[in-house]
Amino acid sequence: MAYTAEIIAVGTELLLGGTANTDAQDVSQLLSELGINVFFHTVVGDNPERMTQAIEIAKNRADIIITTGGLGPTFDDVTKETLAKAFGKKLITNEVEANKIRAFFAKRLPHAKMTENNLRQADLPEDCIVFDNGVGTAPGCAFEAEGKHVIMLPGPPRECRAMLKSCVEPYLRKLSDAEIHSHNIHIFGLGESAVEEKLRSIMENMKNPSLAPYAKDGEVMLRLTAKAGSKQEAEEMMSPILKQVCDTLGDIIYGIDTDSLENTVVELLKENNQTLATAESCTGGLLSKRLTDVPGVSKVYFGGVIAYNEKSKAELLGVEPDIMHEYGAVSREVAVAMAEGVREKLDADIGVGITGIAGPDSDSSGQEPGTVFVAVSTRKATTCKQLRLNYDRERVRIGATLNALDMIRRLLKPLN
Amino acid sequence: MAYTAEIIAVGTELLLGGTANTDAQDVSQLLSELGINVFFHTVVGDNPERMTQAIEIAKNRADIIITTGGLGPTFDDVTKETLAKAFGKKLITNEVEANKIRAFFAKRLPHAKMTENNLRQADLPEDCIVFDNGVGTAPGCAFEAEGKHVIMLPGPPRECRAMLKSCVEPYLRKLSDAEIHSHNIHIFGLGESAVEEKLRSIMENMKNPSLAPYAKDGEVMLRLTAKAGSKQEAEEMMSPILKQVCDTLGDIIYGIDTDSLENTVVELLKENNQTLATAESCTGGLLSKRLTDVPGVSKVYFGGVIAYNEKSKAELLGVEPDIMHEYGAVSREVAVAMAEGVREKLDADIGVGITGIAGPDSDSSGQEPGTVFVAVSTRKATTCKQLRLNYDRERVRIGATLNALDMIRRLLKPLN
Repeated sequence: MAYTAEIIAVGTELLLGGTANTDAQDVSQLLSELGINVFFHTVVGDNPERMTQAIEIAKNRADIIITTGGLGPTFDDVTKETLAKAFGKKLITNEVEANKIRAFFAKRLPHAKMTENNLRQADLPEDCIVFDNGVGTAPGCAFEAEGKHVIMLPGPPRECRAMLKSCVEPYLRKLSDAEIHSHNIHIFGLGESAVEEKLRSIMENMKNPSLAPYAKDGEVMLRLTAKAGSKQEAEEMMSPILKQVCDTLGDIIYGIDTDSLENTVVELLKENNQTLATAESCTGGLLSKRLTDVPGVSKVYFGGVIAYNEKSKAELLGVEPDIMHEYGAVSREVAVAMAEGVREKLDADIGVGITGIAGPDSDSSGQEPGTVFVAVSTRKATTCKQLRLNYDRERVRIGATLNALDMIRRLLKPLN
Repeated sequence: MAYTAEIIAVGTELLLGGTANTDAQDVSQLLSELGINVFFHTVVGDNPERMTQAIEIAKNRADIIITTGGLGPTFDDVTKETLAKAFGKKLITNEVEANKIRAFFAKRLPHAKMTENNLRQADLPEDCIVFDNGVGTAPGCAFEAEGKHVIMLPGPPRECRAMLKSCVEPYLRKLSDAEIHSHNIHIFGLGESAVEEKLRSIMENMKNPSLAPYAKDGEVMLRLTAKAGSKQEAEEMMSPILKQVCDTLGDIIYGIDTDSLENTVVELLKENNQTLATAESCTGGLLSKRLTDVPGVSKVYFGGVIAYNEKSKAELLGVEPDIMHEYGAVSREVAVAMAEGVREKLDADIGVGITGIAGPDSDSSGQEPGTVFVAVSTRKATTCKQLRLNYDRERVRIGATLNALDMIRRLLKPLN
């Protein structure tokens, strides 16, 4: 039997437009992977009466009710009280969680006094399964009542995501009699509809396994999912399709079941025993920030320079002022000099140089906003790529960074 | 009378987690500005039966129903048909819109054949007000029926946003007799519940104006909102409370109605004619990335160094190897040398040095993960702060960056 779930996000700030409901997106992605139908999302404010209304409606049309938000310590956090009441459950202080909260405050804020309302976070519905919050202090939980599965998750997206992975996924997997397994195919260098066009003949009439594209932040991800009696059976169903997809898309696939392009790059650097240094202008540290998001990167990444004016390019990277004056700060020549300069200064195997105009305004370089040069230099040769990214400031910076990462990837993993 | 609106976003894609419901956020922001209450968001798939269910529920609890999505040319776009049927309206081909669609295709895609289903986008409910789509081809519309205002908007976020501004805002302004105005008070250095604790006596029993805290990424924001007959009246209602809040919280407030701490810092640098350079170790470029998120920052930010190993600290910043060996790479002495080194190298007024351990693992420095030293150096003096951030890698990096920004802010804006 296929379960049906409804997601109720609680938070007046969502209704005021302060933030988008990304929790519902994250929960939906997991449910979709698990083969659980989602027919409705609801957003309701921190208001017991209207929350009760939303719960009653959800009870009538879903087997699983998942709430996000409203588990915090403040008096407007009323999700637990309201949900417990709607299902005839009492709230009981969970001493294990209460002690965790006390310990958290004692360790992190030894000089601050923990306020009593922080302990409200340890009040949980009777007979529930507690979901540990590895990131914040509010635990989540799940309970069964009136033939429904009710799951409460914290609102802050990082906490919600972590709990989805560590607690909700195993909990929901046990409910299902089929197993769902999936592979994420990560692509850079082609848009969502172009990817879909290339895969049209494969995707047509696919039901199980299924193949769905997701576009996000300049990349495309394909999720291949199979529902079967066992993991092995699911893998056997997916294997020929995975091969077809890889054959069709070729080297625009940068990884399967990987975390990110920067993770792939760091792995490749380690495998190839290569070290990296970066010199950034328009990306302003976004490339180094993304590289250093990866734990353990210090083995292969030496550091870099943010050269936001002429002096920093000359002083820190040894770029000749003459080159900047002759070709302009945004030029192939300067990108190359930056890549070579940072590689030599830090004695790394690979140097990257990025110079461009993120916009919104043009500058004295005479180049259009969105023009970016990315150079990659090794001990043997330097290559440079010119990009025209007709987007806003943020997306120009993301696009330039992704292109730089992709150039390093291709350098380390030559085409088959 | 205050109107109540409900937003129904239509799209199976949203239920699969392919994208976040940013349309509902955009619509909510406008409605909040206009003083129209939003008590619920609903998301439903491209399914006439379940969409009808959602519409019936919304009819019972809202005066204004706003849908987004499902206006496109494909057979699964059924919002207009379903909504018209629910309110007993016929769909009629609007010849003006049909001609616009023909002209659009003739101009933009002269070699492509327009399919007949593209013209379905010109079918609109009888007696509706047509909302021109300046960005795409699907028009939106508004009609009145059964005492409700019904508004249909296109799903692609750019089209929805453009139509909100050009068509929906003027349409709704005519309905409302009250205005809502608000101020956002930005805080760094105290947690959400501690802020609330300090403001308890002010917040108790507040209805209009209202004061609500939001925690996000290591900061807290308070939103003060008043509903009144005019902007002036709303401001007069908020003014004494704003003063009370400022008096109570003091200098942990870094800005009112500002975008971010980095925006505040960039503004202060410009006002004080000061320039900045950064040297980062554990934050790996996050500080420079956030500074360069601000357009126009190049006037006051010269650049910086990501010093991820000993050689980069020595080579790019002139930190003496002896200091690193004697005190360790994660030490007050090294943070100070980094701040002073980058300031001198780039001839900036202010230099920042950050060194620490983001984790998850410890390193050879002998310090605990979460230990961070932040130094701020001017031409006259250097100060250094030691932080103990017992969080995960990402939050240590965010915390260190925010602390560095806050130290610069306090340097430029001495306490009153």
